[in-house]
Amino acid sequence: MIDVALFGAGRIGKIHAGNVAREAGARLKYVVDPDLEAAGALAALHGARTAATAEVFDDSAIGAVLICSSTDTHADLILTAAAAGKQIFCEKPVDLAIDRARACAEAVARAKVICMIGFQRRFDPTFSALKSRLAAGEIGTPEMLIVTSRDPGAPPIPYIKSSGGIFKDMLIHDFDIFRWILEDEAETLHANASCLVDPAIAAAGDVDSTAVTIRTKQGRLCQINTSRRAAYGYDQRFEVLGSGGMLQAGNHAPTEVVASTTTAVSRDLPEHFFLERYRAAYANEMAHLFAVLAGTAQLRTTIDDGLKALELAEAATTSWREGRIVRLA
Amino acid sequence: MIDVALFGAGRIGKIHAGNVAREAGARLKYVVDPDLEAAGALAALHGARTAATAEVFDDSAIGAVLICSSTDTHADLILTAAAAGKQIFCEKPVDLAIDRARACAEAVARAKVICMIGFQRRFDPTFSALKSRLAAGEIGTPEMLIVTSRDPGAPPIPYIKSSGGIFKDMLIHDFDIFRWILEDEAETLHANASCLVDPAIAAAGDVDSTAVTIRTKQGRLCQINTSRRAAYGYDQRFEVLGSGGMLQAGNHAPTEVVASTTTAVSRDLPEHFFLERYRAAYANEMAHLFAVLAGTAQLRTTIDDGLKALELAEAATTSWREGRIVRLA
Amino acid sequence: MIDVALFGAGRIGKIHAGNVAREAGARLKYVVDPDLEAAGALAALHGARTAATAEVFDDSAIGAVLICSSTDTHADLILTAAAAGKQIFCEKPVDLAIDRARACAEAVARAKVICMIGFQRRFDPTFSALKSRLAAGEIGTPEMLIVTSRDPGAPPIPYIKSSGGIFKDMLIHDFDIFRWILEDEAETLHANASCLVDPAIAAAGDVDSTAVTIRTKQGRLCQINTSRRAAYGYDQRFEVLGSGGMLQAGNHAPTEVVASTTTAVSRDLPEHFFLERYRAAYANEMAHLFAVLAGTAQLRTTIDDGLKALELAEAATTSWREGRIVRLA
Amino acid sequence: MIDVALFGAGRIGKIHAGNVAREAGARLKYVVDPDLEAAGALAALHGARTAATAEVFDDSAIGAVLICSSTDTHADLILTAAAAGKQIFCEKPVDLAIDRARACAEAVARAKVICMIGFQRRFDPTFSALKSRLAAGEIGTPEMLIVTSRDPGAPPIPYIKSSGGIFKDMLIHDFDIFRWILEDEAETLHANASCLVDPAIAAAGDVDSTAVTIRTKQGRLCQINTSRRAAYGYDQRFEVLGSGGMLQAGNHAPTEVVASTTTAVSRDLPEHFFLERYRAAYANEMAHLFAVLAGTAQLRTTIDDGLKALELAEAATTSWREGRIVRLA
Repeated sequence: MIDVALFGAGRIGKIHAGNVAREAGARLKYVVDPDLEAAGALAALHGARTAATAEVFDDSAIGAVLICSSTDTHADLILTAAAAGKQIFCEKPVDLAIDRARACAEAVARAKVICMIGFQRRFDPTFSALKSRLAAGEIGTPEMLIVTSRDPGAPPIPYIKSSGGIFKDMLIHDFDIFRWILEDEAETLHANASCLVDPAIAAAGDVDSTAVTIRTKQGRLCQINTSRRAAYGYDQRFEVLGSGGMLQAGNHAPTEVVASTTTAVSRDLPEHFFLERYRAAYANEMAHLFAVLAGTAQLRTTIDDGLKALELAEAATTSWREGRIVRLA
Repeated sequence: MIDVALFGAGRIGKIHAGNVAREAGARLKYVVDPDLEAAGALAALHGARTAATAEVFDDSAIGAVLICSSTDTHADLILTAAAAGKQIFCEKPVDLAIDRARACAEAVARAKVICMIGFQRRFDPTFSALKSRLAAGEIGTPEMLIVTSRDPGAPPIPYIKSSGGIFKDMLIHDFDIFRWILEDEAETLHANASCLVDPAIAAAGDVDSTAVTIRTKQGRLCQINTSRRAAYGYDQRFEVLGSGGMLQAGNHAPTEVVASTTTAVSRDLPEHFFLERYRAAYANEMAHLFAVLAGTAQLRTTIDDGLKALELAEAATTSWREGRIVRLA
Repeated sequence: MIDVALFGAGRIGKIHAGNVAREAGARLKYVVDPDLEAAGALAALHGARTAATAEVFDDSAIGAVLICSSTDTHADLILTAAAAGKQIFCEKPVDLAIDRARACAEAVARAKVICMIGFQRRFDPTFSALKSRLAAGEIGTPEMLIVTSRDPGAPPIPYIKSSGGIFKDMLIHDFDIFRWILEDEAETLHANASCLVDPAIAAAGDVDSTAVTIRTKQGRLCQINTSRRAAYGYDQRFEVLGSGGMLQAGNHAPTEVVASTTTAVSRDLPEHFFLERYRAAYANEMAHLFAVLAGTAQLRTTIDDGLKALELAEAATTSWREGRIVRLA
Repeated sequence: MIDVALFGAGRIGKIHAGNVAREAGARLKYVVDPDLEAAGALAALHGARTAATAEVFDDSAIGAVLICSSTDTHADLILTAAAAGKQIFCEKPVDLAIDRARACAEAVARAKVICMIGFQRRFDPTFSALKSRLAAGEIGTPEMLIVTSRDPGAPPIPYIKSSGGIFKDMLIHDFDIFRWILEDEAETLHANASCLVDPAIAAAGDVDSTAVTIRTKQGRLCQINTSRRAAYGYDQRFEVLGSGGMLQAGNHAPTEVVASTTTAVSRDLPEHFFLERYRAAYANEMAHLFAVLAGTAQLRTTIDDGLKALELAEAATTSWREGRIVRLA
């Protein structure tokens, strides 16, 4: 039985807390959040209690920490947790600054703890089935990857201002998909972008629509298109063209009802947003964490994966700001 | 907090036990099964303990019983539970004999307890969304219902021998769908059938393929086709034609991967069998039970629904055996 | 080069005339229709001329006649054409009276001419591909056939009154599909029906919604559901369950546009009605006729097929009127 | 009645000849091709005759010429035809050299004849329905366009060598789709590319896989991905994300058969290649030409459209060769 502390009692913290509760070998002991009411409510729901940060790290019974607090707290918590020898799960991104993220990775390596990054898409049933079938050679050698990643609507402007920009905030997941699916690294990257959804996003120094192209070291091509707004819901698709065919990951829908009326044959919109779309992924992700801690699985999303995705996000930001193709190291 | 006893530690008992564990207001106290090992393992998993039947009914703390044991035990357990004033959940069918099922219904009514029947399909996300949209008038007045219901493979011959026949064992669910969707009762019923899958089924006095037609009191038409074998998995579809269009309930698939190879564009087979297909339905069903017990929902699948479906199954058996159209009361 | 006379310049006559025009080895010489204006316009379009019936049969250059006139004229024209040694194509049904249809079949046999019946569905790309794949064993032995056949709207009441009833007018195509797909004959047939679309249809002595079940000599089961009205268009689907899987024939749509809006993911309605849905089938059918006449193909839809479908329509009418299961010879 | 001369008796020439034959107001008079056997066979099929080029232009009865010969002959034929006052239909591209293509456009303008370019995709039922619905505002303002364009297999190396490269040979159609759908012009263009299908293509100085990004003057984004090989057939899709939703154009399949077996639920591969996929488009295109000549339609694909697409292809070639983002005038 491993005792766990959760930092962050927001949307994603609640999801993880619920999934920890379903794990036979884990027990949620502390919930830490500056919003004490939120922390208390979540703790109460799962038989845990609230605590201050220091208390968590002083408690030698705590085996693992889940870092689901705001991005600006990630690095400090990782460093402290690593120093305390705690196992770590951290939501993306590690940090908005690459240097600081690298420092975290080094600290984790020195401490010989794991630091799993919350790239939950790798645990989605559709995405991971596609990955397995690709690995099994069903479509030969992969050549092109097309990723479509669109949110149902833009976040509030204050969120955007502190997000590090669309590439670090939103596309970081797509960059991880790219690396995971193609098992290859970027050689060059070009990011184009525009502000088409809301001028306030441009005023905040960000964009809401992007078109990224990556050429890999092996000469493969990847295109990513994203938007902060899809009127029809959360659009999360990708397709791989291989020498022997194509594998596509489609959207998930809440039901399989088909309606034929006088105007159209229609189906459900996709699952509304990430909490619905990746519900199974989040459960699988947490199960994976505890399987890794139990020694029965190999960590699938390391802090190094977090760093690599961040480097791509950084390159994309540069490419877009400077209007040029960026060559990666 | 309501204390619950579970009769039957088989496949479906395990499902319900897991779902009870997720209910905040319920606690699994006892597991009863002649197979003590199975009972013990399931009880251990959920912090319950094994018990003999008498012990359950003697325990005044027990508020509800879940009857998931073999069909021949249902009636006795219902009668005993009703007499003891316990709330009841019972898997279908109430009993293979209608008279005995009626006696149960009367006992339940006298005892003023609920007896929810496990017609889980009514709690399936796709089916219940279809029902709601139908009720909202999306396709006008319903006129025809076509039900396709096929198992991935036939059960063992001993099971078939004690099943009461395909109409009571398998189509009873489809008969309930018919009543629930059309909100109408049968006036005439014709059941044709054949043994096409396995001659041993005919030797056991049963059939494996059926084609049932029902005409309702309001003149609507319903066709049901079933088979004990669908090589491609569990096929659970139905469609309603209404004056203003059609609503179809399609199969669910494990993933949304689409593969395009040199021979075809292909998708996943449907979920393999009822445990997978109706996973969400079973969870919703158990949540409904406890919502009813908490007074926040109205019971959706009563013992009367169980009786009515049984009467249709009985009529179908007669129709098939005697080669005639049966008129219902 | 074979000279052809067309009887009937209505909707279906126009279709066939256009397809004859595309045949390298055929020439439309005459168009016969009591509506001289319609006959003249169609003749002019294809470089043919109008004629009286007698003139056609007196012209020894005429090799084949296409009978697309009203049903009550079919038998006389077949008898006259056979006597004159002309090759015959005739729209369904041969005649509303079975005896008279049989007399036609005998005359055709005596005259040693062909009499192809216009069961165009056998020439539809989707249906014929399904048939070929079934014949190739892709799903093993066929066990059940489910046919869905719905018109977009009911014909005018005068048409209904002279149509011979829904079973001879509409389901005759479905009965042919049944025989063609299962390659088996009916042992028993049960037809239920109702008037749900328009009370005027009941007043005219007919029904508009039917549910037919056939059990074949080999014990296979077939269910057919039809309606005179589908608000979403012409619904023409069937599916075959076999020992090794299922083959389904789906509707055709005008385009492959998919729209995702704030309410649904929607596709085109099916092709509106038979002229659109079976456009390719009609072309293939006419090509087949001339291939048969050229000796390069074997006739696929004989007058015997027309008779057998008519017998099923007759049995269905009896079953429905007398409320009983009908046993076929 | 307009007399027509066809240059080029190859695959596409045959298609157009067949469609001219179906036009009431047009007659194919001459077929011109250095391969006299091919020319003769095609002419015979449609009651035309072969001719030398000079003969065609000397015949004042010829109202229109269809230029379907090899690319290197297009410009000369356009110039001669314009000088002779003939109406012109020309397959893409106008010429591989932009200057020469511009000279053609000027000659056409001076001669006051039309020069329709064979961008047949604009006449495809699916694509043109999507365009109409977009224009009708179904998804609000278009923001992003994603084009997927893959051939079933690479052409022979000699063809590639004289093709002007993948951007002028293959993507020219996609560039036209871009302009037609977004009704906007490119501001910047970035083309990445790779040789992944066949090293012989690289040896011939070309690539076989491309990833193009265009930013329009209005800030919209377009991504195009193409490959010379899709093992599953001809992949011709695009999707438009708008402020109010998405419209997608899907592939067409030969039939609507769905097979469910022990391994998958599968559908037909897409139509194999352009001759099958765009059969209806070619017919509509030719009908459009004669409607324009009859004064009942406005020309949809002008030589200016041909020039603009060629300029994008040229920019893409430069972008790829020089590894930089190209700004368009």
